[in-house]
Amino acid sequence: MRILVVNCNTSEETTRAIERSATAAALPGTEIVMAAPTWGVESAEGYYESFISAAAVLDVLTMRADDADAVVLAGYGEHGREGARQLLDIPVVDITEASADIASLIGHRFGVVTTLSSTLAGIGDSLLTSGDSGRCAGIRAADVPVLALHDDVESTARLLVADARALIEAGADVIVLGCAGMAGLDRALEALIPVPVIDPVSAAVGMAELLVRMGKSTSKAGPFAPPSRTKLRPGWPLTNAVVAAA
Amino acid sequence: MRILVVNCNTSEETTRAIERSATAAALPGTEIVMAAPTWGVESAEGYYESFISAAAVLDVLTMRADDADAVVLAGYGEHGREGARQLLDIPVVDITEASADIASLIGHRFGVVTTLSSTLAGIGDSLLTSGDSGRCAGIRAADVPVLALHDDVESTARLLVADARALIEAGADVIVLGCAGMAGLDRALEALIPVPVIDPVSAAVGMAELLVRMGKSTSKAGPFAPPSRTKLRPGWPLTNAVVAAA
Amino acid sequence: MRILVVNCNTSEETTRAIERSATAAALPGTEIVMAAPTWGVESAEGYYESFISAAAVLDVLTMRADDADAVVLAGYGEHGREGARQLLDIPVVDITEASADIASLIGHRFGVVTTLSSTLAGIGDSLLTSGDSGRCAGIRAADVPVLALHDDVESTARLLVADARALIEAGADVIVLGCAGMAGLDRALEALIPVPVIDPVSAAVGMAELLVRMGKSTSKAGPFAPPSRTKLRPGWPLTNAVVAAA
Amino acid sequence: MRILVVNCNTSEETTRAIERSATAAALPGTEIVMAAPTWGVESAEGYYESFISAAAVLDVLTMRADDADAVVLAGYGEHGREGARQLLDIPVVDITEASADIASLIGHRFGVVTTLSSTLAGIGDSLLTSGDSGRCAGIRAADVPVLALHDDVESTARLLVADARALIEAGADVIVLGCAGMAGLDRALEALIPVPVIDPVSAAVGMAELLVRMGKSTSKAGPFAPPSRTKLRPGWPLTNAVVAAA
Amino acid sequence: MRILVVNCNTSEETTRAIERSATAAALPGTEIVMAAPTWGVESAEGYYESFISAAAVLDVLTMRADDADAVVLAGYGEHGREGARQLLDIPVVDITEASADIASLIGHRFGVVTTLSSTLAGIGDSLLTSGDSGRCAGIRAADVPVLALHDDVESTARLLVADARALIEAGADVIVLGCAGMAGLDRALEALIPVPVIDPVSAAVGMAELLVRMGKSTSKAGPFAPPSRTKLRPGWPLTNAVVAAA
Amino acid sequence: MRILVVNCNTSEETTRAIERSATAAALPGTEIVMAAPTWGVESAEGYYESFISAAAVLDVLTMRADDADAVVLAGYGEHGREGARQLLDIPVVDITEASADIASLIGHRFGVVTTLSSTLAGIGDSLLTSGDSGRCAGIRAADVPVLALHDDVESTARLLVADARALIEAGADVIVLGCAGMAGLDRALEALIPVPVIDPVSAAVGMAELLVRMGKSTSKAGPFAPPSRTKLRPGWPLTNAVVAAA
Repeated sequence: MRILVVNCNTSEETTRAIERSATAAALPGTEIVMAAPTWGVESAEGYYESFISAAAVLDVLTMRADDADAVVLAGYGEHGREGARQLLDIPVVDITEASADIASLIGHRFGVVTTLSSTLAGIGDSLLTSGDSGRCAGIRAADVPVLALHDDVESTARLLVADARALIEAGADVIVLGCAGMAGLDRALEALIPVPVIDPVSAAVGMAELLVRMGKSTSKAGPFAPPSRTKLRPGWPLTNAVVAAA
Repeated sequence: MRILVVNCNTSEETTRAIERSATAAALPGTEIVMAAPTWGVESAEGYYESFISAAAVLDVLTMRADDADAVVLAGYGEHGREGARQLLDIPVVDITEASADIASLIGHRFGVVTTLSSTLAGIGDSLLTSGDSGRCAGIRAADVPVLALHDDVESTARLLVADARALIEAGADVIVLGCAGMAGLDRALEALIPVPVIDPVSAAVGMAELLVRMGKSTSKAGPFAPPSRTKLRPGWPLTNAVVAAA
Repeated sequence: MRILVVNCNTSEETTRAIERSATAAALPGTEIVMAAPTWGVESAEGYYESFISAAAVLDVLTMRADDADAVVLAGYGEHGREGARQLLDIPVVDITEASADIASLIGHRFGVVTTLSSTLAGIGDSLLTSGDSGRCAGIRAADVPVLALHDDVESTARLLVADARALIEAGADVIVLGCAGMAGLDRALEALIPVPVIDPVSAAVGMAELLVRMGKSTSKAGPFAPPSRTKLRPGWPLTNAVVAAA
Repeated sequence: MRILVVNCNTSEETTRAIERSATAAALPGTEIVMAAPTWGVESAEGYYESFISAAAVLDVLTMRADDADAVVLAGYGEHGREGARQLLDIPVVDITEASADIASLIGHRFGVVTTLSSTLAGIGDSLLTSGDSGRCAGIRAADVPVLALHDDVESTARLLVADARALIEAGADVIVLGCAGMAGLDRALEALIPVPVIDPVSAAVGMAELLVRMGKSTSKAGPFAPPSRTKLRPGWPLTNAVVAAA
Repeated sequence: MRILVVNCNTSEETTRAIERSATAAALPGTEIVMAAPTWGVESAEGYYESFISAAAVLDVLTMRADDADAVVLAGYGEHGREGARQLLDIPVVDITEASADIASLIGHRFGVVTTLSSTLAGIGDSLLTSGDSGRCAGIRAADVPVLALHDDVESTARLLVADARALIEAGADVIVLGCAGMAGLDRALEALIPVPVIDPVSAAVGMAELLVRMGKSTSKAGPFAPPSRTKLRPGWPLTNAVVAAA
Repeated sequence: MRILVVNCNTSEETTRAIERSATAAALPGTEIVMAAPTWGVESAEGYYESFISAAAVLDVLTMRADDADAVVLAGYGEHGREGARQLLDIPVVDITEASADIASLIGHRFGVVTTLSSTLAGIGDSLLTSGDSGRCAGIRAADVPVLALHDDVESTARLLVADARALIEAGADVIVLGCAGMAGLDRALEALIPVPVIDPVSAAVGMAELLVRMGKSTSKAGPFAPPSRTKLRPGWPLTNAVVAAA
């Protein structure tokens, strides 16, 4: 099967990092296809950038999702999830939701360690609307710049330990990495703390594969029924040609 | 003072209708300035269109908000609210939140009557994240096309009566019109049912004026601290020049 | 228009302080009329006093509200709100609820700084029943006697700084002053902390004016339908003559 | 032991009816002492009357509770509970809370059948602040005037059957009578429906006796610490002498 | 009346300790009959042991409850409550739920002090499903082994003081002892902290007596309707003969 | 890998049906090993039977889980989940939780259609404690005996259609089959209604495989730390030998 994994920002480096996580997690027969917006934000570090990235990601999906069997949205805590589910006929798995599901199967309460405190409120909203906040013991930010993370996993893990421990103290017995794209960081952090650590991209790729294997896709009988594409109007330039042809 | 009222879609007709509501509601010294996206959706009728409209509205705000004292976001239940608050230094009032506030001051529970059932889930999410769902007795859609509403208020009101009554039966003693832009529809519906009806644009214009008069604006000490604009990357064409100049 | 602002206690000094806040906040054409109970409590510092003050305030409203266009209940966190809405045909704005509304428009989470820890539980109940607790990051008391506050705003602000900062640490990006009546305290506290501060009397006066301008008043089709006044019985002396004449 | 059972209204007939319930429920050695306000409302049928009755009941408690071992507040869903707990050193049991406790021990979800729909919102608030709404399947009113209930229990029970059945349909497997004072109505209604029916006065008398036997009383280390009585001011005439002497 | 008090573990020492609490709390005419599983766990110190003990307790109830008027389940936070209510026709009072009820009548928020941190999550679940978590300010474990508690109450009380104080700091004004069986520990701890302390066995015995006196028992019209006993199958050896004869 | 799928009852027929679902869902390299209690209940149709089955299932796990890579608990809504997580070092996936996760990825709200109304309350508790109730639009029972279901899927599907449609009317856009063991029933029901239908055994097998592939297992740093097995006492006959040897 083919899974389209969509980075929410325009950083090539982030796309490559996500790809490494996704590829490592995929089943043998699964083809991971990466995509990223051609416009939008280089890094989604708060509400404003998240909303811009949501539209940019939806733009990518309009153009790129046709030959995929499932989509993984690889922006942790970012907006757009429900829009993608409405747009596409194939399953759409958000790494925020998938990692909460996986974490809840192996722990009593999960904690989220993310990079920037400017993203905490948006992550909270995402877990609230996905119905996953009841099992969440807390969300903390190490305030490490996203773009500074792509060095080596051991040193990055060390930057996250203090917040992970604070979450364990607050009741978490599993940690979710609240950011996409750092293959092996889960293992590196597990070496430093006594609880399992979930890489959200791996969780989402696995759940996307599972949905495809189960033959289940987004319900079109409720709020995810297709939008009326013809209402898109000239002026959203990049998508426009594609939409006209759809 | 000057209040920028932003339609979330590209329909000129909707913009004019919102303008009539906003102007009728404004204080004598208030100048209502209308804006609408130059790209995006002609009508936001669900999650997908709402996310596109959010980015388009944020694009408008980047270009148009500089000389305003406050912004009213005139898309009922639409995404983007928190992004606008992050982007701008002036107060940002969402008609969804403002109308819930006003309704809660004059009733025990409010019900929302909107036009399309495809928007119900998104409205629910908006009230959930704004913390206003506790006073909401229900959200119902008359399934009248948004674009068909701009005829006369009396006949439109008649289309909404059945759902308004169902909400009253379910415990609502105030009705909020879950759509922007139909000056006088609140009065027309009040003539047909025994409870007050809130026009959300009027509510939001009033609360925007109030914030300006109080000299209060969005807190920049939390998640609404300004985004790092320089990260916006070439390819989001309409905004790009403006951002470069910012 | 004429707005009746009701102090919940019998302290003349508090009434004058509230008046200063209310007058400073009012629109040019608004007449602020002050009222206070002639019996009841000198300071409402907990549940018991709050319930006594609620009846005393309702007694005042029976006698004084007839020529007003709206009422502001100027006791932060005090009981009686829903009773006043039932009693009167004009809008009734509680400073607790109005300030939560205003704070929620300009911040992600608000914190309440009040004077006495004996009032914390009652404030919590008030925010819970008004549906405003979801946006509240915490309520803290500086344990400064209410009657000691009316000196100068700068020194009072300094007394509140530590609790305001603790609330900001806990996630608040707006502070609400959890007490009525100290014109200018919001500005004085804003000078000391990095977030906006809301004076609840100002917020309530503004929202009362807004309701009057919108022509909206309390719904009489639900639990705020008028009580059966004739059931009041001789023995509640001050109100009795008024009630008999009604 | 001596239990002071306080009617919340001034109706002698209601006081007598409550007394019959309380006496039938009491342990052999328990003396039931009835009290009722000398001012206030003849029947508490909504928020306004409930707030007046709260002050009137607190007034009674100031004068009458001294020689009691516990107090039962016999107004279903009425305000004042927390004020009484603050005022007195002896245990204070509210019939609303006690009957929810008892019902929750013998059923999965309880439903409340009350008399007047004007009281539904207040009952909901009371269960919400007492933390008992989670087990409540619904509250319904038969819209029978309170004063018309004191005839015979069989015919009254028949008036409540339809609403009790609607609550059972909605998931209730226990019914709580949402009004004070009709000894034997629980048995009469049990004869007509397949679920247990709780008389709230009986439940509260039993729990008051239990608290006395356990030697436990209201905590004075939190919000129920005693109020500063000296702040009561001349003008609340009936209580004043007592307060001055206290 | 006869009340069957069931220890959830097989420790004779714990059974005796519970008996002392129960006997001290009972009304003069009440006969306390103790029971304990003949298989199961010596101490229920977490989810696994709690589920084993639930079945063992249900086994005991199958054999022993026939001549009792009510049952008290004396395992704090343990599973099985709803099963016992389904199995038996007599009232079933869980010490977890009863003590939350009693604590809520005399305080604003209660805190639970228990022995082992491995039991905290299960206690939280029990309070959540019983609807009692809304009044709970926190649950803390002193991490004292259950079996080490049965020495003298004064020294045990000293072991619990630090956690009780932490809960008071967090808002509790009543403490519930989160374990069965230590007559007098409530008094001993009350001597060291400024808030009331509830012994859950005493609370439950009192509420069981009350239900019997009120003539109310578990509703059989909902989820507690009797199970189909004949489906029990050979292989659950101890109960089998009894079930066959039932 | 090897996945141990545990039926919660002793019915051979149910075990075989679950096996068909599990086998159909498994990846090529996965070996499905079935287990069922040798004692307990023939069918878990309510709280009592659920608690007995929980202990019986834990007994099976003590004896059978050693050579498995993961466990699937195939009793929908049944107790024991947290106990199994505590007992075992391998991942434990409950079909209730797994199917809620899968349903939430492809719909806005899911509805549960189960067989017997006596199980509704227990299912509700299971979704509440697993944190999955926020996305659940309702749980309905067709009141078809569990043992009567194993005929053909088409006729069974027809028995569930009315309740599935009622849930769709109530807002569900995905249906979860609230019972284990009927391979192909999801497809048969999908042929009759316009929304996806989730077979919970398939969902759980897939998620168990995913956890194994991810190399993640139950956290042992919180409430799922291993129990103290030595405390098990002679008298729980079937497990005893195994425990002694452990």
